[in-house]
Amino acid sequence: MPELRWWGWAEPSAQDTLGPGALDGLRAELGLPERRLAPVALEDVELEPSRLDPSVRARLSQIVGADGVRDDRLARVAHAAGRGYPDLVRLRAGQIAGAPDAVVLPASHEQVAAVLAACTGDRVAVVPFGGGTSVVGGVAPRRGGLAAVLALDLRRLAGIEALDHVSLTARVRGGTRVAELESALAGRGLSLGHFPQSYEFVSVGGCAATRSAGQASTGFGRFEEMVLGLRGAAPAAEFALPARPASAAGPDLRELWIGSEGILGVITELDLRVRPAPSAARYEGVAFHGFAEGMEAFRAARQAQVAPDVARLSDEEETRVNLALAGESPTRRLGEAYLRLRGYAEGALAIVGWLGDADDVAARRAASLALLREHGGVSLGRRPGQAWSATRYAAPYLRDQLLDRGVMAETLETAAPWSSLGAVHGAVGGALRSTLSARGTPSLVLCHVSHVYESGASLYFTFLARQQEGAELEQWAAAKQAASRAIVGAGATITHHHAVGVDHAPFLEPEVGRAGLALLGAAKRELDPAGIMNPGKLIATAG
Amino acid sequence: MPELRWWGWAEPSAQDTLGPGALDGLRAELGLPERRLAPVALEDVELEPSRLDPSVRARLSQIVGADGVRDDRLARVAHAAGRGYPDLVRLRAGQIAGAPDAVVLPASHEQVAAVLAACTGDRVAVVPFGGGTSVVGGVAPRRGGLAAVLALDLRRLAGIEALDHVSLTARVRGGTRVAELESALAGRGLSLGHFPQSYEFVSVGGCAATRSAGQASTGFGRFEEMVLGLRGAAPAAEFALPARPASAAGPDLRELWIGSEGILGVITELDLRVRPAPSAARYEGVAFHGFAEGMEAFRAARQAQVAPDVARLSDEEETRVNLALAGESPTRRLGEAYLRLRGYAEGALAIVGWLGDADDVAARRAASLALLREHGGVSLGRRPGQAWSATRYAAPYLRDQLLDRGVMAETLETAAPWSSLGAVHGAVGGALRSTLSARGTPSLVLCHVSHVYESGASLYFTFLARQQEGAELEQWAAAKQAASRAIVGAGATITHHHAVGVDHAPFLEPEVGRAGLALLGAAKRELDPAGIMNPGKLIATAG
Repeated sequence: MPELRWWGWAEPSAQDTLGPGALDGLRAELGLPERRLAPVALEDVELEPSRLDPSVRARLSQIVGADGVRDDRLARVAHAAGRGYPDLVRLRAGQIAGAPDAVVLPASHEQVAAVLAACTGDRVAVVPFGGGTSVVGGVAPRRGGLAAVLALDLRRLAGIEALDHVSLTARVRGGTRVAELESALAGRGLSLGHFPQSYEFVSVGGCAATRSAGQASTGFGRFEEMVLGLRGAAPAAEFALPARPASAAGPDLRELWIGSEGILGVITELDLRVRPAPSAARYEGVAFHGFAEGMEAFRAARQAQVAPDVARLSDEEETRVNLALAGESPTRRLGEAYLRLRGYAEGALAIVGWLGDADDVAARRAASLALLREHGGVSLGRRPGQAWSATRYAAPYLRDQLLDRGVMAETLETAAPWSSLGAVHGAVGGALRSTLSARGTPSLVLCHVSHVYESGASLYFTFLARQQEGAELEQWAAAKQAASRAIVGAGATITHHHAVGVDHAPFLEPEVGRAGLALLGAAKRELDPAGIMNPGKLIATAG
Repeated sequence: MPELRWWGWAEPSAQDTLGPGALDGLRAELGLPERRLAPVALEDVELEPSRLDPSVRARLSQIVGADGVRDDRLARVAHAAGRGYPDLVRLRAGQIAGAPDAVVLPASHEQVAAVLAACTGDRVAVVPFGGGTSVVGGVAPRRGGLAAVLALDLRRLAGIEALDHVSLTARVRGGTRVAELESALAGRGLSLGHFPQSYEFVSVGGCAATRSAGQASTGFGRFEEMVLGLRGAAPAAEFALPARPASAAGPDLRELWIGSEGILGVITELDLRVRPAPSAARYEGVAFHGFAEGMEAFRAARQAQVAPDVARLSDEEETRVNLALAGESPTRRLGEAYLRLRGYAEGALAIVGWLGDADDVAARRAASLALLREHGGVSLGRRPGQAWSATRYAAPYLRDQLLDRGVMAETLETAAPWSSLGAVHGAVGGALRSTLSARGTPSLVLCHVSHVYESGASLYFTFLARQQEGAELEQWAAAKQAASRAIVGAGATITHHHAVGVDHAPFLEPEVGRAGLALLGAAKRELDPAGIMNPGKLIATAG
């Protein structure tokens, strides 16, 4: 099992490594310096002494065992932040914005409930911590005015509790890593089908708490569609919402826990829908004359109920840069020559994929491709799909290497109705480019549609620029603010699958209204009257 | 536009009329008396004088206009109850359990909000009233200890506000009837695809407030899956949750309004997903050797993602009675002979259907039928499907005629995982049969699977027995209690699509826990601090 490094993503393998050609290309595009910027040593990270009262520490040890409470330097620093760009800037510089006073590792629902009870009594904040991969500050250790703050690391609360092969459901503990679950299910001929970029590290509870979406979610559904039942421990209540295929018994309370980002309590157990493991998977490339044409094709396929399970469409800039970053490889030369020949040289590349048994993949592929072709798509065969598949989790590894070279690399995402998707694409891209240009750091702004729905689609932006030395965080904040304002201004959602955390909290009110925030606040007061749960996140009432 | 009669369903046409053969059959099975029991005349209904204070009435008239406040006998009695069996027993006897002190008809979101503000100030309870078709007491006019109670009839808040043909969404006012909407959409080449049994009368707001499911929901999805955004007016807040294809921006607050049954506020506007109008529809019959075999076939089809859009499977008893009720028709004789020949004489009949364009219907039909056949199904061709389709909304019309003849006819429903579906079927059927037998009124208990999901399915029970004269309500309550206890005892949901209302409120706690009720109570206190909204429903805190 790979582990995240305290200052970044995990150790890259060969295929997660940025090639020299790609670096040369970026240098030319962005005007990079020739320096290398290594992270500081662990012992050089600024770390305040733990504020956890020894008597509280002793009480916690009684609940989770002595080895279940950790306050060594590595444990505290490794739980000091998620893995957003500003997190990495701070961690690498050794100037973290705070660290948990201790890390607590419960191994059962009951231990979680007991820890929350103890922390309520002792006025200690609790930050639920699954994979720790939040890119929006979701696991930032904020004390919220309380005496101390704990990271509640759920890795010991892992494993499958029960499988129902008839109903195709799995009861899984909240801290189970999605990759571990997928692997355990595969051994039983089953699959969850959830593949976010953080796949190797993220936990099922984290996916539920953040409304995660994965690379095959167009086919398998978003994580919330997989959650049939859940068990949750809140400071003032315990929930056991049973798995139901469907119900009209009042509002769906699962939907209050899903996306609650740890501010209500901890999701300790999930009843998840699983599916027969696909025996076949086919990924391939489809080229369009442009992003607009590709969006129309994706829309047509989705609205005709024949979208591929994986449906990604890069805009012209992302297509160009991806081809360029492939370096002088045969794939690139072949691809470029082919596209030029066919009049697709300035086009938009889609990656489409299907999972299932061979007949199912063949039938659905034929139906998808027929519609995509009808809308201008031209098939590029398997090679682009295989290239995508081989590097589908590579981006966060590459980001570490870009930071080594002084490159800001950040992503953000949204979703909007089809009728405004093009406008949102233009507004967000424009806001990022103009903000970064104005700071003297011209950018590459890449975008792709990552998930398609009947009424609209998501847009996933990646932006790269030379780091503004000494003002890395200000540079990032300016770009992030500009993009967020553009998203809100265009009436799109502030996040399609990264969640709210700290970074998007100021933008939740435009989306759900003051009444929506008040309603979430009322739920929080009911379940967490002392306000210990994940202060400063989502509704940010406990800053 | 048909209208409900004050004492029952609407005037039946020929195809909604119970034939003499069917009546003979029921007489033989249930031991019916030869009497006819007509409803009392409207002027003979017991009706207390309105308690609405004239000054409050004047304030309401200022908001909605003089013709928007009604307190004549017909208006009050027509809004005195939903259309459950006990409602009909009381209405027909003229002994209603209470009536609204007035009926108020707002024509805009703003008028709704102003009425709620006025009622909060004047301590008047408000019962949102769409089609008035609740079968669980959802529109019962309870005062909840307040000065008076109003029915807030939303029929004037109707119509399509906007259509987005690109994103396939429709913005629709909450009081719009589903049938009116479907007809307006059809004129634009679109369809909502929601066909509950109350289709002709039910409103879109009512469908949202009760988590409605319709006859084609296996294909088109439950009503909550169609709601992309909504506007709601609560006494203490107004909500405008925008239409999003998907979002990770915190808990899904739509899911708190959906299923809220009027206890939080009024759903005044909905952004609904629509689809291209199907140009073809095909319904047909499939016979199985028994209900268990049919359930396995439906499960296999659904889990292989090839379920029909309409997927109904009658158990052996429902199959037998449906054939018998068809009388001595050629269909029946043909059907019986054929089934006997094939060894399906004691079998279970499924109705399956597909909607779409001709190619789509053909392809999906082939995929569905291949799997159903593989699991023992034998196709009976279109005739049974056409017969079902022609009478798909007839049951509530027939119920009036059964009540005319002294027959109790009631339905209830649940959903459960596939692995326990057979046990739930047995437990609920057994509870109904033994309870009614013990009262000296032997019953017919019929059941069908009405909707299928990957993890389970719904079960829809119809039970018929001779009315216990003078103890009609006690007889019903005993059967209903027994069935509800059996459902809860088997771990199934207390309702798959009829909602909670008054009848199921005592059974919500076993399902969502005390913590779940407390959370709903906290939401209600936030949005409706004076407790004016639909007292006594769902969480029944305001009796």
